[in-house]
Parts: sequence; structure tokens; C-alpha cells
Amino acid sequence: MTVKRNVYLDMKSVETAKNILFDAFPPTGEVAWEEINSCDALGRVLAEPAVAGLSSPNFHAAAMDGIAVDAINTFGASEESPRSLVPGKDMFWINTGHVMPEGTNAVIMIEYVHKMDENLVEIEVPAFPWQNVRKMGEDIVATELLFPRGHQISPYSVGALIAGGVFSVKVRKQPKVMIIPTGNELVTWETARDKGLTPGDVIESNSSVLLSLCKEYGCRAESRPMVEDKLEWITTAVDEATKSDYDMIMIIGGSSAGSMDFARPVISTLGEVFVHGVTMMPGKPVLFGKVNQKPVFGIPGYPVSAIVAFEQLAGPLLLTMQGRGVMDRDIVKVQPARKMASKLGMEEFLRVKIGAVDDRLIASQLPRGAGSITTITEADGIIRIPTHVEGIAEGEIVTAELLRPLESIKNTVVITGSHDNTLDVLADHIRRTNPEVSISSSHVGSMGGLMAIKKGSCHMGGAHLLAPEDGSYNISYLKKYLPDTKVHLVNLVMREQGLIVPRGNPQEIKGVLDVAEKSLAFINRQPGSGTRILFDYQLDKLGLTRDQIKGYTNEEYTHMSVAVAVLSGRADAGLGIYAAAKALDLDFIPVITESYDLVIPDRFFATDKVQVLLNTIASSQFKKRVAALGGYGTEKTGDVLWKN
Amino acid sequence: MTVKRNVYLDMKSVETAKNILFDAFPPTGEVAWEEINSCDALGRVLAEPAVAGLSSPNFHAAAMDGIAVDAINTFGASEESPRSLVPGKDMFWINTGHVMPEGTNAVIMIEYVHKMDENLVEIEVPAFPWQNVRKMGEDIVATELLFPRGHQISPYSVGALIAGGVFSVKVRKQPKVMIIPTGNELVTWETARDKGLTPGDVIESNSSVLLSLCKEYGCRAESRPMVEDKLEWITTAVDEATKSDYDMIMIIGGSSAGSMDFARPVISTLGEVFVHGVTMMPGKPVLFGKVNQKPVFGIPGYPVSAIVAFEQLAGPLLLTMQGRGVMDRDIVKVQPARKMASKLGMEEFLRVKIGAVDDRLIASQLPRGAGSITTITEADGIIRIPTHVEGIAEGEIVTAELLRPLESIKNTVVITGSHDNTLDVLADHIRRTNPEVSISSSHVGSMGGLMAIKKGSCHMGGAHLLAPEDGSYNISYLKKYLPDTKVHLVNLVMREQGLIVPRGNPQEIKGVLDVAEKSLAFINRQPGSGTRILFDYQLDKLGLTRDQIKGYTNEEYTHMSVAVAVLSGRADAGLGIYAAAKALDLDFIPVITESYDLVIPDRFFATDKVQVLLNTIASSQFKKRVAALGGYGTEKTGDVLWKN
Repeated sequence: MTVKRNVYLDMKSVETAKNILFDAFPPTGEVAWEEINSCDALGRVLAEPAVAGLSSPNFHAAAMDGIAVDAINTFGASEESPRSLVPGKDMFWINTGHVMPEGTNAVIMIEYVHKMDENLVEIEVPAFPWQNVRKMGEDIVATELLFPRGHQISPYSVGALIAGGVFSVKVRKQPKVMIIPTGNELVTWETARDKGLTPGDVIESNSSVLLSLCKEYGCRAESRPMVEDKLEWITTAVDEATKSDYDMIMIIGGSSAGSMDFARPVISTLGEVFVHGVTMMPGKPVLFGKVNQKPVFGIPGYPVSAIVAFEQLAGPLLLTMQGRGVMDRDIVKVQPARKMASKLGMEEFLRVKIGAVDDRLIASQLPRGAGSITTITEADGIIRIPTHVEGIAEGEIVTAELLRPLESIKNTVVITGSHDNTLDVLADHIRRTNPEVSISSSHVGSMGGLMAIKKGSCHMGGAHLLAPEDGSYNISYLKKYLPDTKVHLVNLVMREQGLIVPRGNPQEIKGVLDVAEKSLAFINRQPGSGTRILFDYQLDKLGLTRDQIKGYTNEEYTHMSVAVAVLSGRADAGLGIYAAAKALDLDFIPVITESYDLVIPDRFFATDKVQVLLNTIASSQFKKRVAALGGYGTEKTGDVLWKN
Repeated sequence: MTVKRNVYLDMKSVETAKNILFDAFPPTGEVAWEEINSCDALGRVLAEPAVAGLSSPNFHAAAMDGIAVDAINTFGASEESPRSLVPGKDMFWINTGHVMPEGTNAVIMIEYVHKMDENLVEIEVPAFPWQNVRKMGEDIVATELLFPRGHQISPYSVGALIAGGVFSVKVRKQPKVMIIPTGNELVTWETARDKGLTPGDVIESNSSVLLSLCKEYGCRAESRPMVEDKLEWITTAVDEATKSDYDMIMIIGGSSAGSMDFARPVISTLGEVFVHGVTMMPGKPVLFGKVNQKPVFGIPGYPVSAIVAFEQLAGPLLLTMQGRGVMDRDIVKVQPARKMASKLGMEEFLRVKIGAVDDRLIASQLPRGAGSITTITEADGIIRIPTHVEGIAEGEIVTAELLRPLESIKNTVVITGSHDNTLDVLADHIRRTNPEVSISSSHVGSMGGLMAIKKGSCHMGGAHLLAPEDGSYNISYLKKYLPDTKVHLVNLVMREQGLIVPRGNPQEIKGVLDVAEKSLAFINRQPGSGTRILFDYQLDKLGLTRDQIKGYTNEEYTHMSVAVAVLSGRADAGLGIYAAAKALDLDFIPVITESYDLVIPDRFFATDKVQVLLNTIASSQFKKRVAALGGYGTEKTGDVLWKN
């Protein structure tokens, strides 16, 4: 017997869901407004056109220091026959910005005025009418439209409003939003801070994200204390909020169709559900309806789902309530570094890192998991794959919405390859010394880095590839895999690799041999990673075969993931760097010291941003910070070890 | 005798000035910081790297509803030989998000679980280790770097901080700025509001602009009441501010080298002046120095000069104080619609409108006047012309910094040509109905509009070109000047043109003939404008010559400027539209009703944004608003009058 689950009976596309939402809550024509002083209006949105009440300048003003004249009295003046003018009669001394005296229409610059005595000046050049005069209304004419409704007030706008005599403006009221987090597994961050977490506790962070998003969307938002997953409690909370002065209510969590998912029953009991389930990923289990004439959303609890649900549905409605257009994001053309698959029938929002390499923008996909907030905090952009498309081929040009300015992306050094914790130190240290430059690193293993260099999808690769023949690092791999690419090989650090084992080393592991002999659970790194190659090398040296290692095929992609596997009991040992063991307070049995280098194609070597990075690496402050981590040697740090 | 003026003895380039500034106020290594709750940190900048204190998830969690098992117990299960599992012993019912019980490492989805009775379930498919499990640390591993120093907190970042157990963050303190407006000609906006203006009064708006800019740059700023141009008073104000806890002081006004310009003497008396005069336009007369260890700026009083001085010098220093990089603006490649001249030896900041036409971005220069705030509020971008460059040729590709998002520029309909007030109504009405679409109109006269269409620098032109032969409008001009361009000619309005004369019509003008016979001062429109053609037509009809009109060569570019010329006494009459006369409460003597049409090339006609515009024009609400202006007929509004 298979248990039948509730499913979303009638999922809608994003577009359809949006249309249903906007039809259910149409703009009422006149938006709610309030009047505030123009000087306080930065960022607000005009509810009515702003029409100038005064002209600027509101008088004819001298634009130069000199004398004000009626131009007609100067016609014919020349060096041979200078024209005499009498102060107070047919000329007036005037300074920049001052009112043109009655009957004058031109200013002659003081440089061209010859003062004969107190009662006489001479000029040798005629003036033409309105020369050096800022005419009344030159900037702003009273009654003219300064800004249409819907205009968002910039610092510059404030100046035009005040100069145009618009001292207060009617701006759209900021919609008021109530956010109701639900979920028995949740604890507030205050509780987590004060009492710590027990397994099963999840820190409630969505309400803070949604509050911040609402703020960015020009709204006032409040969240109420978390509500336990009891139907009556959530129902009461929503009922109260919809009867109060909130313009929108968001229930976070419980938006799916399970027995403990209460968002739907709450909305359908108090009002009406319009849509449950949207064909988008993340964000599929979103729902919305109407209670007491107010829009009520069920926002999925996974953090990225919550963000997508907000940005695709709730957010646009909040903007419409303010009479504003969509939240603009810059769109750029990018090339995926590798094929990106997508599920047919779902609109996918793929989070990508974007690097500006060789005048192309290369997009590298981040993990898809909607539960991982870092898949969006690390993203530079989002690629939307429509429902009817199965994926994007490698190199195919697609559009991406940018999450940070293109200029900042262009100032980012893209490092692809092996992972090392000193890259984080480097990222931070560069931000300290050269805040305009940043680093974006993707962890695909040493060989992955070389392949990325070959494809031209990064500026440099991090590698620690051991040549078993001679114990050298990287050079033989560069000769073999990048024979046609001119590169510099620069040492970042010497580092210890060793076995990461639980604190106290309960299995009394002394080396790789013990892992095989004691049949301990091992956690491996992915093929192509330097650590995997190193491990295989160790096995060969010890005369061990792969199948003598239990868990040889269990793979992780970073040192920290290996350490986490050990910490959480998934594995008894894994090969990794000291820093990872130390970070999680695990024990570490040194196996080898290796060279972790940066492979930098010559065509990027001399670029400003790469030079900033190299200077940072060479600095004594950076070396000091690295040394403090433990497990690293900096004796070769910054040295060019080889070039072809 | 020529009076010698004080000049800026030693002007610096923008780059040199910036270097002097940053050398004088170097980042002190550790920036001032404060600790705030992460949930309140939106927009703030990290003073230290944020390192995760907790892993997320901090336990192995089920990623599906179903049963938790040890995968090894399921190996070999198949449809033919299902595996039996006993609840509580080798399987545990589990919901998404819950803790994986001790000894389990996989979740089998409930769909694949056959419940035999309360004490037995069967499965037909084996599980592999860690399937449907969100592993501890999958999102965030405790000790990993979440964000480097200098990272600006986004709504997403808030989520990662809280999920990673970083409940409070050290953020850079917001620099505190004191703004001191000076100038005897200034009145506060409150005074202007309460008491009105007398000629010579200028409303002080710069302090509100600079306060708003400071806010946008992440600073707290205050302004003090205006200080009269008395050396002692300004000196006292600056001395007090530099001794208080402000991090920067800006004196607005009096930054030139005239006798009433006190910023320099104040700074040099109290401290030291580093730079006076920078080779940039606008903004040349900026100065800065150090008083009591604090940076003090003399900000020029012209509004655009003040903005440029802030954005080039004071602003970047404020960002550095926060350890932030430059304020990123997107850079795009644009083509000037016509040649743009620039002064050698000066770096010029040209304000331009930008239109996306035919996949190119066309830049049209706005007036240069630093005194006109609207030259920057109307700008979509800024083109910087280096000191050694004399200008940009028409069509030459140059870069522009964007002042509004590219997407919004792409959704803008660029209308070039004759000016009519209904275009403002249209702009506003579209914002009401379709907030994502906007209008940008440049006023270069009807013929200028046709030329712009020919060049492909706009989406449509506004024209009211009278054919004297037959009294028709526009069509004969289109045949003559755009023979190869397929266009639709759409009527916007029928409108009255007439003589705009002072209120009460003191000269008792009845028509154009009176202007000639009474030898009155006329204000004309520029050649190529429909109104100029109309006026010439009227002269011809009346048998008058151009030189019988006094002021025939005095030209303005818009109806409103003509009306302002009449209002301010510069002219006794000008030809223009009723709306302009009405706006300034002037009298109007009708001369002719003309057809004001939009010329729309076919290749733009069907585009979404143009269709939005046409639908708006055709709407009864728009026609009602136009009719309410007076002087317009809407009987043909929206009609396609002709196409080729």
C-alpha cells in the first residue's frame, strides 16, 4: 500500500499566478499617499506629478561679475571709439547671481570694463542682449512638470523640487506588511544566542530576510513572535492582522500540502485561496489568497524559496501598491562555464557566479538547494530557465539578472580549482587594502581548475597536483594539460595535508595504513582534486588497493565538507588540510607537506586586479595572517615557481 | 585700467586633487566600528569579516517525508524480494527537516514505503547512503567565512548571518558630516514657503541635496542654519564643527576666489588649504583643506557644481572612511546624437539623455549650465570628457556612467522634436497606467525631430509643420525629408497657436500685424521649429518682411521660454500655445489651430513601449486631461492620419 500524499492539484505558471494575483488586488487608481517635506523625501515615490511652483532663477540674474547695461547703449563700442557709460545711469556694478537692474539686459565682464573715475567707465566691446545673464526660468519655469507620478526621489530630485518651489510632496504611503513565522522546529535567533541549539532546532531567519526585503521594496514591515504549528493559533494571528491596518500578510512556513502545513487551511477558512503551487524552482509551494480583502501569502520555509516567492509574487504586488514599476535588475549576456540542466515544466532560477574573463561573462552554477541561503548570497546573478527548456548547453549565450553591479563583477578575480582556506584570508585581506577588487572562488578541484583555464572561464586556478614520479607539484600537469597556454605558476602557500579524525583520535589512527587495516569509514575527495591524487599516491606507496578503503567512493568537494563528515560521525577519517581540522576542533595526523600554487595565464598576469592580488600575497601582513592559521608555511608565498 | 581678479593660481586635475585628498586623510587601518544586531544591518558595511559561528543545518536532517534507515539494511531490496523493516528498530518515520535518528543515514520517500501493519513496512528499492538527507553543514560550516570585511549587507546576507549563528555584526560607523550653507542671497525653503520670494532671493537647496547624498553614501549628516557671508561667523561655525565629533565639514558657497568668497580664508586661517580649483566642469571652484585634523570642503554654490564636487572628492573620501570601494555606476557604450564640444584643459561632466534606439544607445546632451539642477535631474547618464580631449564627434562611441538602470532606459520612448505640454501629461499618464514605461522628450523643434528620425536617434518625433501651399501639416515634409522611411503619422492633439502677451494686453495687440506696426519687442522661436514656420507663414500672408519685426532674431527653444520672456518683460509678444500663456497667467490672442502629430517610424510602431504610448493616447482619460488644459482639441487624438 502506497500512502497517497496531498499534492498541489493545480499548479500555475509564474505568469499565470502573477496575473491571478494582480487581478485579485488591482491598483485602485488612486494610491494611498501622505504629504512630507521634500527635503525628507529621498527614496520615496511621488503619488502625484510634481509641478514647479516657482521659476528658477525667479529673476534675471547676472552670470558674471561686471556691469549691467542695456545692450543697445553699447552697440558700436570699439577700441578706436570706446563707449563711455555713467554708473547709476546707464551701467550698474553687479556681482554674479545678483538681480539685473530694471532696464538692463546684458552683463559686461569686469575684465573688459575700464574705470576712468568714480563717475565714468569705458568699454571697447559691445554687448549683445542677454549675454552673461541667467534668464528668469532658465532652469525651471513655474508650472512646468518637474517629475511625473511614480518618480522615485533621488538626491538630485530633492534639489529640483526645492529650487522649483515644491517644498512638500505627496508621496505614496509605504505599504504595511505583517510577517508571521511558523514552525515548531524554529527557535528565534535570540534564543539560539542565549541558550544555544539542540539538534533539530532551526534558527528562524526568514522573517529577518523578508523584513529587509520589504524595507528595500519601500515598505514598512513588522514580524510577530513565532507561532507554533497549531491551526487555531495561526488562524487567530492571520485574522487579527487582516483586520488591522496591514496591507499584506505573509505566513512563513507550512505552505506545502502536508498534514502539518497550515497556511492553506488558515487562508481557506478565513477567506479564499487563489493559487497553491507555482511551477517555479525554488519557490514551488507558495500560495496566496484573500482574507478580509487583504492579500495573504503562504511563503515556503526554505530560505531561497522564500526569497523567490517574495521577489516573484509578493514583492511585485507591494511595488504595484506604491504605483511603482518592477524592481529593475541589470540584464547581461553570459556564457555558462558548463552545461546547466533544468527540469521541464518548471521555471528554474539558477544562481550563478559571474566572472568577466577575456571580455566574456562566464556563469558558473551554484548548488540548487533551496535550503541553502549561501547559494544566493554567493551569487552574482540569476539565470531564469523557462518551463519548456530542458537546460543550457556549455557556451550557449543566455541572459542573467545581475545581483551586484557589473563594474564590481569586472573588478573580481575569478579563481577556480582547488580549495584552500587561505583564499578566504586573501579575499578578506584584499578588501582591506583594495576595497574595489574582490575575489570569487569556485571549488572544483585542482584538475577542474586547469580545465577552467583551458576553457577560459577563470583568471587563475588553485592547484596542488603531485607528480608521483618525482614528487614535484603542478609543473608536469601544466606541461601535459595546458601545453599551449603561457602561464605563471605562483606559490600561494606550503601546506600540510593529513588525516582529519575525531577529537581525541578514538581509533588511534597513525596513518593511512590504519584506515585500511582497521576497516574504518573513510570520506574521500572527488576525482581530479589534488587531495584525491595525493591519497591515491599514498595508497600506491603503501601497496594498498582502492577497495581496501571502506568509503573510498564517498566523496566531498571541499576540505571543510570532509571535516564536517568526520565531525558528524559519517566518517572516521578523511584526508584534508590542517586548517579544516582546526576549524572544527578535530584532530589531525600530518601526512605530507605540499605546494599549493596559483596557475595564472600570462594574459591575465599583468592586469590591474591580478597585480593587486599578487601584491597582497607578497605582503608581510598577509603572510602573517596565513601563518597564524597553523598548518601553513609561507617561505615561498608569492614566488614565481615556474613559467613557460 | 583692467581690474585684476583673483584666480585659482594652481588648479589641479581631478586625479591629482583626489590623490592629495586621500594622502592627507589616509585610511587609519582600523575603521571606526559599532556592533549592531544582524537583523538590523541592512545596507551597513562589515568592519570585520563575518565568520560562521554555527553550521547550518547543525544536524543531519531529513530532506523528504518518509522513513529514516541505515542504507546498508536496504541493499538488495527489489520488487521481487522486498525488504521488511521494523519501525523503531531499523526504520523511523520522519518528516522533512527533522533530525536523522542515530544510526540512520538515508531517507526513503513515503511514496516508496509499503505499510504492512503497525509493526512492519516493506520497501522494494534500496537506499544509497545520504540520499534525501541534508547533511550537517551543507549550507554553512561553522568557522567558514560568510562575508569579507567591506561587504555591504543585503537582505540575503541577513539570512546567511543569522543562519550561520552571527547574530550581531561589527559594522563601520557611519561618518558624521556637518554641512554649513553660506550666502547672503539665500533664503531657506521654509522662509520661501512662508513669506514668498523677492527678486534676488535664491532658495537654499544645496544643503538638502548634500544631506541626501550623504545619506545615500551611508553617512549621517546634519546641516546648520545658514551663515551670512561674514568671515568671523563662518570661521566660528567651522571651528566649532571641527572640534566636535564630525568627521567632515562642508561649507557650501563662497568657494571661488572673489572678495566675498570666504571658504578659502576660513580654512587657511584655521588650518591649511590643500587644493583650490580643480580642472573639472562643473565644479571647478571646489577647495579643501584640513582644520583640527578634519577634512573641510568648500563646495561651490551652483547646484550641479556642488554635486560634482561631492561625487568626485568629498563622497569618495566618505566611502573610504567606511572602508568601502567607489560608488559603482554601470558603464555603457553610447553614441552621441550630435557632436559634443568640450573645453581643452578641463575634464567635463556632460549630462546626457540616453535612448535605446535600434539596439544602440543614443546620447543627447543636456544644457551645460552648472546653475541648472534640471540638467542633472533629467539626465540618464554622464559622459566624462578628459582634459586633453576637445570633444566627441557625432556617432563616435564613448562610455557613459548610468544614472538610472539600463532596463528602465530600454523601456523609455524617446521623443525628439517640437515641444508640447501634452507630452508632459502623456508622460505622467503613462506612469499611472504602465509604470514600467516612461517617456523622454527633447525639444529641438519639428524639423529637428525629423532629422533625428532620419539619423535613428529617437523613436518618434513631435511635429506641427505647416505646408503654406495647402495648409496641410507634416505630410509634405515627411515626403520631402524622409522619403525612404516608412512612418505612421499619428495625431496627438489639435492645438491653438496665438500671440502670448502680458496680462491685460497693455499694448492692445490684436494680431501679428500690430506687432509690426506698433514696433513691439517680439520673441521668436528657433529656425526649424513649427512655430517659426507658422510665424513666417503669417508674415508672408500679411505681406510683412522679417525686419519689420523687432526682435525677430531673438530666439527661444520652447513655448514656455517664450512665455517667460513675455512675463519677465523681455518681450511684448511671442507666438506660442495657449497652455504656455495660461500656465504663467498671461493673455493669449488666438492665431491659428494646428495639428500636432507624432511621426513614428514603422520599425518602432509595433514595439511594446510604443503600443503602450499609443493606447494611452487613445484612452478617454488622457483626452479628458488634455481637454482640461484648454487650447487643445482632441477630436483626432490617436488617429493615424497618414502612412507611406
